[in-house]
Amino acid sequence: MSLNQKYIGLGNQPNAIRELFAYGQARKAEIGDDKVYDFSIGNPSVPAPQKVADTITELLKEPADVLHGYSQSPGQMGVRQAVAGNIKRRFGIDAQAKHVYMTHGAAAGLAIAINAVALPGEEVITVAPYFCEYKVWTEHAGATLVEVPARAGDFQIDVPAMEAAINEKTAAIIINSPNNPVGSIYSRENLQEFTDMLRRKEEELGRQLFLISDEPYREITYGDEVPYVPCMYADTLVCYSYSKSLSLPGERIGYIYVSDTMENADEVFYAVSGSARDQGYICASVLFQRVVEACVDEPSDVEAYRANRELLTGIMDELGYEYVQPQGAFYLWVKALEDDDVAFCNRAKAHELLLVPSSCFRSKGYARVSYCVGADVIRNSKQAFADLKAEYDA
Amino acid sequence: MSLNQKYIGLGNQPNAIRELFAYGQARKAEIGDDKVYDFSIGNPSVPAPQKVADTITELLKEPADVLHGYSQSPGQMGVRQAVAGNIKRRFGIDAQAKHVYMTHGAAAGLAIAINAVALPGEEVITVAPYFCEYKVWTEHAGATLVEVPARAGDFQIDVPAMEAAINEKTAAIIINSPNNPVGSIYSRENLQEFTDMLRRKEEELGRQLFLISDEPYREITYGDEVPYVPCMYADTLVCYSYSKSLSLPGERIGYIYVSDTMENADEVFYAVSGSARDQGYICASVLFQRVVEACVDEPSDVEAYRANRELLTGIMDELGYEYVQPQGAFYLWVKALEDDDVAFCNRAKAHELLLVPSSCFRSKGYARVSYCVGADVIRNSKQAFADLKAEYDA
Repeated sequence: MSLNQKYIGLGNQPNAIRELFAYGQARKAEIGDDKVYDFSIGNPSVPAPQKVADTITELLKEPADVLHGYSQSPGQMGVRQAVAGNIKRRFGIDAQAKHVYMTHGAAAGLAIAINAVALPGEEVITVAPYFCEYKVWTEHAGATLVEVPARAGDFQIDVPAMEAAINEKTAAIIINSPNNPVGSIYSRENLQEFTDMLRRKEEELGRQLFLISDEPYREITYGDEVPYVPCMYADTLVCYSYSKSLSLPGERIGYIYVSDTMENADEVFYAVSGSARDQGYICASVLFQRVVEACVDEPSDVEAYRANRELLTGIMDELGYEYVQPQGAFYLWVKALEDDDVAFCNRAKAHELLLVPSSCFRSKGYARVSYCVGADVIRNSKQAFADLKAEYDA
Repeated sequence: MSLNQKYIGLGNQPNAIRELFAYGQARKAEIGDDKVYDFSIGNPSVPAPQKVADTITELLKEPADVLHGYSQSPGQMGVRQAVAGNIKRRFGIDAQAKHVYMTHGAAAGLAIAINAVALPGEEVITVAPYFCEYKVWTEHAGATLVEVPARAGDFQIDVPAMEAAINEKTAAIIINSPNNPVGSIYSRENLQEFTDMLRRKEEELGRQLFLISDEPYREITYGDEVPYVPCMYADTLVCYSYSKSLSLPGERIGYIYVSDTMENADEVFYAVSGSARDQGYICASVLFQRVVEACVDEPSDVEAYRANRELLTGIMDELGYEYVQPQGAFYLWVKALEDDDVAFCNRAKAHELLLVPSSCFRSKGYARVSYCVGADVIRNSKQAFADLKAEYDA
């Protein structure tokens, strides 16, 4: 037997979100761009700040052999220092550049981090609903992903349920706040209770429990605080991405920060480096390392998303849809109008509304509406949402 | 036990070449740039063609949200078509875009390809000396790397030795021509004999034997033909990189081409896609995908390397060093003046000559001299090479 059958399956089974997005592209070509309401994908609609283009233009004046040359695997010292400085300024942690590892975005960061800290036979826990690739990367490490549903109603971490799930096989817990797909943000109180419990369990089990904080949406918020996890829990690895904050999803640039509060941060950083090397990562694009170095303190423009949020929740309220109050990211978690979320999204599709069923995130009865779209898409979709509702009300 | 100890080892054990390069940087700061002859690393000294910068400048005029947005995982259709067209024009194969997978350089391509075709417990064979990460990526797949020494003298594939190494556990063979570290190119005759044997073994064993052709140095040649492997052997995956041909090593852009001559190319392409997904790869930088799309037919400027090759081999001849005739890439494989290549390179270091011992490539008695440097470095190093030789002659 040759060929990895699991990989044939993974490669052949299209990601449902990307499939829906591709359907939308085809459908638009067929019936017109303004007739399809594509809420499927999390591709930022806000362009990258002008400073990104300005920085690249400046960099192109440098000698090309130096500009595009190899960097050290964890990244150039300049960008690592810039990231550490940003963490220090914003969160007061004495972050050191030597614990910052630049990655090809958060996906690479998560795959590298999970494989660094979880061993075959161990368990990694996450909060459901969740970004489905967590499962793929955990299983790549030979570990098992354990799902703990979010607290009913407010979608915060269910601390008692989480405590019950932790055992001697637990290697790590992945959290994601602001959350994809729900749009919730874990409160300081919730995180405090959670990390207090983790510390207690570490002592009880006599082992490190790594907290992997997946933070691509950190800057996409509308007023709520997003507490910095390393300030609350020492054994944290932050996986950050500039995909959303600088609107650079296709360029794949982000970092892993091994918290300086961690006692064995150097050792964990080595594990991260080795994990990256093992999976064929050489270095993140040096041009975009330099862009991040220059733009590290650039504010994210969330005004368009804020306006979209108002517009969309206004329509939902008017039409009588139920949803989770969106605190961050650019996703609305809307209750499906029937138990079967896939059937619901299929009926929505007949109205040219492209929504992602919650099953894609290992949860039932909801749909994710990505509102990182032009405001007119939301405005024009109102009738379709009304028709869909009427269909169920009839 | 938490943390992956193997990864701590891999992350902690610095790559010898990069360590030597870092030493050179420090040493230059200490005694002066022109006093250290750094032949350690394969970072192209020829800058990227002007068209790269011109293309980026043009692209920056496009709307930034579209320009930097996600692409499909295998890459944008435009660049995949451009690559397929380039293969078709140059090698006459009816290459299809759907079998081109854009990657973060050849390293990612190799890690993805090896993991796609080799299963735990299987074997992957390569020709020694070889780029040491082949072993890391093969072991990541749970497979074993089997080393078959190159033919003595001319460093071509030793076909009888290769045949003896193939058995029912063999999944794939990795070849690399033009070769790092030797600088040899496998002749058409040698490849014909080799692929004839492979086909015979496929029949005999009743299984596919995948040939992974690692080709970052394809364009760095000085007159010798580099036969296109898919034209000679159907079950080939080409791992290509623009690191050397467009001098973009830090940007990480390349591709895997699953040969259209392969009967089950679609299935193998799925395995490649799944393997990439499993290791956290989302897509290659979209900006550099577009750069490749525009520059796919840009000729590589090898004149500086050609001049360096003449200069360096001239000095070696004059001083009486033995070396393998360099046909491609920008490496000279020089016979160490004692059996212990590490000791030899340490003695060279005392003369400020930074050479990589052949042990780094799992071979004995040689040193790799990277001549992708300024011509003055080679010119100025002559006395040091002479002094080193004199030390052994005394």
